[in-house]
Amino acid sequence: MPRVRITRRLHFSAAHRLAQPEWDDEKNRRVFGDCANRNWHGHNYELDVTVAGPVDPDTGYVMDLKDLKDLVNRHVVDDLDHRNLNLDVSWLEGVLPSTENLVMRIWERIEPHIPAPATLERVVLWETPRHWAEYRGD
Amino acid sequence: MPRVRITRRLHFSAAHRLAQPEWDDEKNRRVFGDCANRNWHGHNYELDVTVAGPVDPDTGYVMDLKDLKDLVNRHVVDDLDHRNLNLDVSWLEGVLPSTENLVMRIWERIEPHIPAPATLERVVLWETPRHWAEYRGD
Amino acid sequence: MPRVRITRRLHFSAAHRLAQPEWDDEKNRRVFGDCANRNWHGHNYELDVTVAGPVDPDTGYVMDLKDLKDLVNRHVVDDLDHRNLNLDVSWLEGVLPSTENLVMRIWERIEPHIPAPATLERVVLWETPRHWAEYRGD
Amino acid sequence: MPRVRITRRLHFSAAHRLAQPEWDDEKNRRVFGDCANRNWHGHNYELDVTVAGPVDPDTGYVMDLKDLKDLVNRHVVDDLDHRNLNLDVSWLEGVLPSTENLVMRIWERIEPHIPAPATLERVVLWETPRHWAEYRGD
Amino acid sequence: MPRVRITRRLHFSAAHRLAQPEWDDEKNRRVFGDCANRNWHGHNYELDVTVAGPVDPDTGYVMDLKDLKDLVNRHVVDDLDHRNLNLDVSWLEGVLPSTENLVMRIWERIEPHIPAPATLERVVLWETPRHWAEYRGD
Amino acid sequence: MPRVRITRRLHFSAAHRLAQPEWDDEKNRRVFGDCANRNWHGHNYELDVTVAGPVDPDTGYVMDLKDLKDLVNRHVVDDLDHRNLNLDVSWLEGVLPSTENLVMRIWERIEPHIPAPATLERVVLWETPRHWAEYRGD
Repeated sequence: MPRVRITRRLHFSAAHRLAQPEWDDEKNRRVFGDCANRNWHGHNYELDVTVAGPVDPDTGYVMDLKDLKDLVNRHVVDDLDHRNLNLDVSWLEGVLPSTENLVMRIWERIEPHIPAPATLERVVLWETPRHWAEYRGD
Repeated sequence: MPRVRITRRLHFSAAHRLAQPEWDDEKNRRVFGDCANRNWHGHNYELDVTVAGPVDPDTGYVMDLKDLKDLVNRHVVDDLDHRNLNLDVSWLEGVLPSTENLVMRIWERIEPHIPAPATLERVVLWETPRHWAEYRGD
Repeated sequence: MPRVRITRRLHFSAAHRLAQPEWDDEKNRRVFGDCANRNWHGHNYELDVTVAGPVDPDTGYVMDLKDLKDLVNRHVVDDLDHRNLNLDVSWLEGVLPSTENLVMRIWERIEPHIPAPATLERVVLWETPRHWAEYRGD
Repeated sequence: MPRVRITRRLHFSAAHRLAQPEWDDEKNRRVFGDCANRNWHGHNYELDVTVAGPVDPDTGYVMDLKDLKDLVNRHVVDDLDHRNLNLDVSWLEGVLPSTENLVMRIWERIEPHIPAPATLERVVLWETPRHWAEYRGD
Repeated sequence: MPRVRITRRLHFSAAHRLAQPEWDDEKNRRVFGDCANRNWHGHNYELDVTVAGPVDPDTGYVMDLKDLKDLVNRHVVDDLDHRNLNLDVSWLEGVLPSTENLVMRIWERIEPHIPAPATLERVVLWETPRHWAEYRGD
Repeated sequence: MPRVRITRRLHFSAAHRLAQPEWDDEKNRRVFGDCANRNWHGHNYELDVTVAGPVDPDTGYVMDLKDLKDLVNRHVVDDLDHRNLNLDVSWLEGVLPSTENLVMRIWERIEPHIPAPATLERVVLWETPRHWAEYRGD
């Protein structure tokens, strides 16, 4: 059966800071530059979630996009939007919120909820329009 | 020989409606929501066609992009632009025009015309800037 | 007091057709080209609503953008999104839905609801990313 | 002499929070919603600076765009990028960092440095791609 | 009668160089930096042409956008696309092709052809997505 | 170990011309159309460089994006920006500067400098927003 990939883009705005708690300020500043600013900075993130699977002959859908949007909002965006990624999110506790780490955690939050036979194929997180990270679960 | 992928983006504007003819209005509305509106709605579609192959040493081309643009216009865009995807397109007869179904039919329309040794690799159809479908022929 | 302009962008997808009911098909086709297609076509519209006024010292706002978004949704977008602009919208009855006519009618729908001292300054309606109309109420 | 307007777009990423220090948490949350989150949130801001004036016959310039970029970086962007707009910026002390207030303060920072006969005409600050504020100095 | 503004965006790709023929290389390099490179450089230009006027009650148009596109292509884009702006364009002879000078010359090329009662209101020329010039004929 | 892909977008503006030196003008014009214009034309190129690898537990990085940006600037962008791709670039000597050939040469310039365990995965070069080439090193 042919497989089609569908993608839904969502967005959230959040504050964060890159710093290792066990390092002192000077080392954090040396490794992370301005991203280590003690008082945080922030971004408008764009999140692209791609699901792959066969097309249902009744609906013409791999998966209802409204369902996809709702589940990503419920499990990811509602927790991150207008929040501090270092302080406010239980499932990011102890995680250094680099784009790489975020995109892997977001994958884990979404993957169990994609209804078979569709599967999560790719998550892309844009920190700015000129920098993004992609995770495919492998 | 190294393979390069080239992509040309084209666009068209069309009306459509998501509904199963054998279902009644109430069921179509329940399954497809506002997309089932009896009087249609529409989109500005963007269509990305990717062709892969070796690079011709004379031209530096995988394939002449003007030829690619012309063949996609002739076999796809000219039939869809400023049309109703449910009513006006012979090669979409009986097809529920979801983004998934459209992208597979568009692949079939383009694939036979790509001149060897180049091959069609990927077709992406954007229904909005926040929702798109991708097909790779498998 | 200094005046600041704030803009909120919203979007909707709709079908429409350009045709004068008193003209025959051939004349409509000659004047409006493909836009006269009997079975409709459609667009992803973007709508930019600009409000101007002094800045409230308590909130730092010309106007609460959530209120602006809510009122434009209530009076405009909810009526147009996933609809047919020729058939489905009571306040567009008898209006030929060109971008020019739409942007003037949308102004009239929004203007009475902007809370003083803020005033509606400009409405821009994008039919495609390469074509838009702007109205300033004069 | 004819007047031409030239614009340079710059960007910065910053954290902020909307809250009145004299209000309690509950009132700030009621007025500012999620923007009042105690632990901040943030944005990728885009800043468009427009300068108007006659065109120098020797250079064809209203103003050297590199000079414009350098002065906006020196007086605005270097102070805001990867910073907290409530805590880290001396010239924003006591300012509630709404887009409206920011765009007026940014105007004041840039305006004295535009070399005559060019004049600052407009500053636009984008908080997201769907929300922005504009100030023209009046 | 209410006035509406409509805009059509067109594009062209061209080579150019900023240099005063009466200056030596060293001075041109000092004033224009890399833009003075003797062997040229180039850009993808975007051109926004805005026409204002009353709305024709028969067509709902300020002006037929296809006519606007055709006349801008005929008088401007066909001469500039895939050309060298310093060498290949008769109506740019002796003009230093800065964005400012280009936008004024483009205005002059378009303005006589706008059919009354519509008038040319604004021409914007984007040299890059982060730098543009605007001319309003005054 | 999970692999994440990170991408950094950079840009440059350059002039070029498509022509085979051993062909006469008429044949070059026939094969390459306007791209063969003897006096060059040019583009705003966007360059997306994707690096894949495991995430460093100390930094949360596949690779420091500032390092990636610096090395692509040093080995690619500094040589191409505001230059003529046919005349000014030693490592493009004898190369017909089609998007396909450029993206392969750019890969070769970057690939040796990506620090293990990260690897270069994909280079995408946009000649316009509607046309791009991609190379993955195979």
